[in-house]
Amino acid sequence: MGASLSLALKKKGISTHVTGVVSSFASKSKGESLKSADTILTAEEFRSSKSWKDYDFIIFGVPVDLTVKLIAQLPPDYSGMITDLGSTKKEIIHAVETRFPSGHNYVSSHPMCGSEESGLEFANVSLYEGRLCILTSPKNAKPEIRDRLENFWKFVGAETIEISAEEHDSILSYLSHSPHILSSIMADWAANQKTVKRYTDLSPIPLNGGGFRDMTRIAGSNPKMWAAIFGSNQNEIYKSLLDYRDRLDSILEKLNPKNTLDPKEWERFMETSRRSRDYILKNQDDSKKH
Amino acid sequence: MGASLSLALKKKGISTHVTGVVSSFASKSKGESLKSADTILTAEEFRSSKSWKDYDFIIFGVPVDLTVKLIAQLPPDYSGMITDLGSTKKEIIHAVETRFPSGHNYVSSHPMCGSEESGLEFANVSLYEGRLCILTSPKNAKPEIRDRLENFWKFVGAETIEISAEEHDSILSYLSHSPHILSSIMADWAANQKTVKRYTDLSPIPLNGGGFRDMTRIAGSNPKMWAAIFGSNQNEIYKSLLDYRDRLDSILEKLNPKNTLDPKEWERFMETSRRSRDYILKNQDDSKKH
Repeated sequence: MGASLSLALKKKGISTHVTGVVSSFASKSKGESLKSADTILTAEEFRSSKSWKDYDFIIFGVPVDLTVKLIAQLPPDYSGMITDLGSTKKEIIHAVETRFPSGHNYVSSHPMCGSEESGLEFANVSLYEGRLCILTSPKNAKPEIRDRLENFWKFVGAETIEISAEEHDSILSYLSHSPHILSSIMADWAANQKTVKRYTDLSPIPLNGGGFRDMTRIAGSNPKMWAAIFGSNQNEIYKSLLDYRDRLDSILEKLNPKNTLDPKEWERFMETSRRSRDYILKNQDDSKKH
Repeated sequence: MGASLSLALKKKGISTHVTGVVSSFASKSKGESLKSADTILTAEEFRSSKSWKDYDFIIFGVPVDLTVKLIAQLPPDYSGMITDLGSTKKEIIHAVETRFPSGHNYVSSHPMCGSEESGLEFANVSLYEGRLCILTSPKNAKPEIRDRLENFWKFVGAETIEISAEEHDSILSYLSHSPHILSSIMADWAANQKTVKRYTDLSPIPLNGGGFRDMTRIAGSNPKMWAAIFGSNQNEIYKSLLDYRDRLDSILEKLNPKNTLDPKEWERFMETSRRSRDYILKNQDDSKKH
């Protein structure tokens, strides 16, 4: 995410010096050869030779648990702008409000880019174009900071909307976190069924069609990053999955072999879901396909 | 599916005359202008002017419930080859075995093409290339018919595997039918959550990322066709969804807010699911992405 942002800023023509901080010397070499930023430092180099105040704008592009730790290290009188790209907000906002009890320059960001690939080689200069970036303002954030951050995201092609931490985490549990869990359950569920296994082993090519492939795509997401997300949004994920289970139970009741299915009722179910999908996706792209 | 097959056969260079039977005059005109087949008849024209015995090879490309009705109309002494493209097998095989108590020429097919688009304009000459076609032989099918049908599917680029009706319907409940239901539930679940609704209405662009879009893609499938599939595989879908619910319940227990999540356990969960997906997909395409 960070390298994509650095590339996007350069493409848009900023002359500002961009420093990228990475975890290892291997990433540093990769970043230098890919020109991911003007200067690339390892976290260790950053800690030993630089201070936060050497920079005008800090963007944390690391998992939520690490973001929270870094916020606790920020100088209380830091005068530059600060944001993060975290996937959950309650813990981050709590950390900011704890660190900065009065006027500060931190507003949190969540660009909805739909890629969980990690590694500088996956950086994409157009990642933010046309995407939504959710902004969450902690208490005591200076009003001008939010406006400057909004302009920053518009500059790299994104649109913005302000959503509170609680609402953000609730929405994301429905549109991202719980779907990841349901997708992962699905992959294990199918792979452990004995007839599926028997013929997957026998078949020259995979047994599945495109639907199963689509539905399990996110089961391949980065495990470390997602474990941190689940941990930092446990309550909302739990509530949303209970809601999902209630809906599954009502479908199971109708499918019980003691009942005869009414084809009209199932057509309505499929029609309604299609409209629900069109609604969430605001009728974008492929909603009419399949 | 039928028009794609007709186009594929012509592209491969067969000189045989292909007749397509469609439901309406509108489809007939569309098919004629798209050259979907050499001759195109409406079902009504077919019934009033043709008999099954005018053809050497019959392929039913209609929903399972209609396929079952058509099988009951076949002449018991029909000497050509017969197949279908049905998504469930138990009802079709039962209908064939009822209609043909002794030696016959019917072997059922299920090409796993992963497209549920309907309409001649979506015909795709390469639809069958590199795809798996499952063959299911009813009792008393003449052995040479299975071989001829296998050669037919190989001719249009597919690979084949023989799977019994019961096993087919069990596998498909896991890899296609129940995932469709879980996808449809997901679309409704998210679209009815009040915070998701509030901000979907407020936001200039959709709130969701790629994961939700992928997981609900098949919720947009053809309702009539899917209602027929659910009805003809009710037991297996019910069993597989009970299995899914058990897995969801065990995840819910771990997510219960009274428990503290162990990040390592969740990393293992994500790692295992990723391997499960790679297993089912035989490591094809994008399993490492996201």
